[in-house]
Amino acid sequence: MNTQIILRNRPNQTVTQDNFQCIDADIEPLKNGQVLVLNQWLSLDPYVRGRMSERKSYAPAIALGGVVMGEGIGVVIDSQSDQFKVGDKVIGMLGWQTHAVMNSSAIKLIPHTPFSETWLLGAAGMPGITAWIGMMDICKPQAGETILITSAAGSVGSVAGQLAKLQGANVIGVTSSEEKCAYVQDVLNFDHCLPYKHSSWPSNLNKTAPNGIDGVFENVGGTLFDDLIPQMNPFSRMAICGLIAEGLEEQFHSINLRTLLAKRMLIQGFIVSDHVSRWREIQKQLIDLIVEGKIQVHEKITEGLQNAPQTFIDLFEGRCLGKQIIKLSSVLDIPRKHP
Amino acid sequence: MNTQIILRNRPNQTVTQDNFQCIDADIEPLKNGQVLVLNQWLSLDPYVRGRMSERKSYAPAIALGGVVMGEGIGVVIDSQSDQFKVGDKVIGMLGWQTHAVMNSSAIKLIPHTPFSETWLLGAAGMPGITAWIGMMDICKPQAGETILITSAAGSVGSVAGQLAKLQGANVIGVTSSEEKCAYVQDVLNFDHCLPYKHSSWPSNLNKTAPNGIDGVFENVGGTLFDDLIPQMNPFSRMAICGLIAEGLEEQFHSINLRTLLAKRMLIQGFIVSDHVSRWREIQKQLIDLIVEGKIQVHEKITEGLQNAPQTFIDLFEGRCLGKQIIKLSSVLDIPRKHP
Repeated sequence: MNTQIILRNRPNQTVTQDNFQCIDADIEPLKNGQVLVLNQWLSLDPYVRGRMSERKSYAPAIALGGVVMGEGIGVVIDSQSDQFKVGDKVIGMLGWQTHAVMNSSAIKLIPHTPFSETWLLGAAGMPGITAWIGMMDICKPQAGETILITSAAGSVGSVAGQLAKLQGANVIGVTSSEEKCAYVQDVLNFDHCLPYKHSSWPSNLNKTAPNGIDGVFENVGGTLFDDLIPQMNPFSRMAICGLIAEGLEEQFHSINLRTLLAKRMLIQGFIVSDHVSRWREIQKQLIDLIVEGKIQVHEKITEGLQNAPQTFIDLFEGRCLGKQIIKLSSVLDIPRKHP
Repeated sequence: MNTQIILRNRPNQTVTQDNFQCIDADIEPLKNGQVLVLNQWLSLDPYVRGRMSERKSYAPAIALGGVVMGEGIGVVIDSQSDQFKVGDKVIGMLGWQTHAVMNSSAIKLIPHTPFSETWLLGAAGMPGITAWIGMMDICKPQAGETILITSAAGSVGSVAGQLAKLQGANVIGVTSSEEKCAYVQDVLNFDHCLPYKHSSWPSNLNKTAPNGIDGVFENVGGTLFDDLIPQMNPFSRMAICGLIAEGLEEQFHSINLRTLLAKRMLIQGFIVSDHVSRWREIQKQLIDLIVEGKIQVHEKITEGLQNAPQTFIDLFEGRCLGKQIIKLSSVLDIPRKHP
């Protein structure tokens, strides 16, 4: 039997447990070219919030009654494909379920790494590549510039800030709590971190960035975004990666044209899945930086599929620090083989 | 005596004759390193509207009582500089006046060209370079893409659209009148041109760009800008060059973050004076394109400094087509010499 978490109904503004339902489903027989994957690790990522909504977006919504989408790592336990054999460790959009019937074109063998394979769902995978594209291609930090990262303790923001630091920038993180700020400063070595729910915000922003801000990696939006704009310098860049707060508010926050022109700002939205052709090259560089100890990784592993909805909800409530992973099974004795 | 047009008071929303005053002033004796220029051609450009205002901007405002700023071409008629001699033809910010005392570092000898020297104030000068930077560096048109230019009959927009056409794009101009649209289509060879004050706007936009818009060179702002956003494609680019309409409206128009992210749009403000180091290289390419007949140039020359205020006002009222030049003097018999 396959245990699945499906979308029961769509969230209004905040995501609730009621939006999800846990069901048992049969596993369909494999067709030619398909494999059956026993899912081991499930990645929880904020972008899934967008897919739960029917609001027009860059990608289709999850169907009502459909399995909630998510990237995962698992072991092939049955194969009707020439490309994968039983025991292969694979990565792909396996979904919030214990088993996944996958077309062979939709999964990949995981690369060998000298660190936990789960990091391939975080700093060495999609979130890390997201951070790379937004920071290196759009924010383009220069030595001595001030670069600010919102949601700095998250899986994307934590890598984005460390990349900016490696370019010699003065790096300011913004998170929702002082506890997370301590982590961002002490472990990730950002120069500063500000809790934006604290009464000192945004007045402290001015003190912390007395020379203004040259680049922003934006994961939040909302009123936090509004507070950043007056501090932006001429020729500053802003990468819009995510808008966690925009789902929670009715109003859409915006930037006016006069500010864009007067400050000669660049603002650009991006989505990592548009850049698949570059993933391998970027992933290789991220793996090297992690191995060299130049990027610190923090993940929290929660056991059991049944805990996925609450952990996912916590992502939006400011309760998470680092990458959130759900552990689904412990079939660790299946030998890992590469063809 | 030096006849000057000075800023008498600042415009509220629209510029009026009352904002200007024509006075006669003495010509100060030259200091070491200075030259006296007899101004021949004065360029009228919309950016001067911004400098007439005290609103915070990228450059200081013109002082009340100060000579209105403007680029011009003139002849050196007295020199206390080793770098310039009497008879040299020079270009610089000579201002709205018949004579200019200039530091030698603030003027340049004009290059030899096989066309009218006045074009160095238009397509082969600052407006053309502005068009180049916004179109080639920000909009980056690809063959087959749809590129839209607002204020398409103006000195900047006319060059911007022709550059996009040279890249193989499908080019749509937007202007305020059908007369100007005819010029944009028939003379400048844009594929389409739409008059945005016509009742068919914006419904005709949809018909004219059935595949959406991939790039916008924006000179106008205001409600026109709002009409463009729904037509913008994923991965589209928008260069904010000017905002003529924003001076006329109280409200600042803006773009919201969700649109930027969902469409993965890039929007960037720019100002040509930030790119002075590249002017010569770009100007050379523009001159070549003009000589080869690949960029058509249209200018209107109005005689007499006293006509500068009304012609300038006409720029914002949609009454101008092409580059607006004021002819100040006819000392054409002074031989042009290059050192």
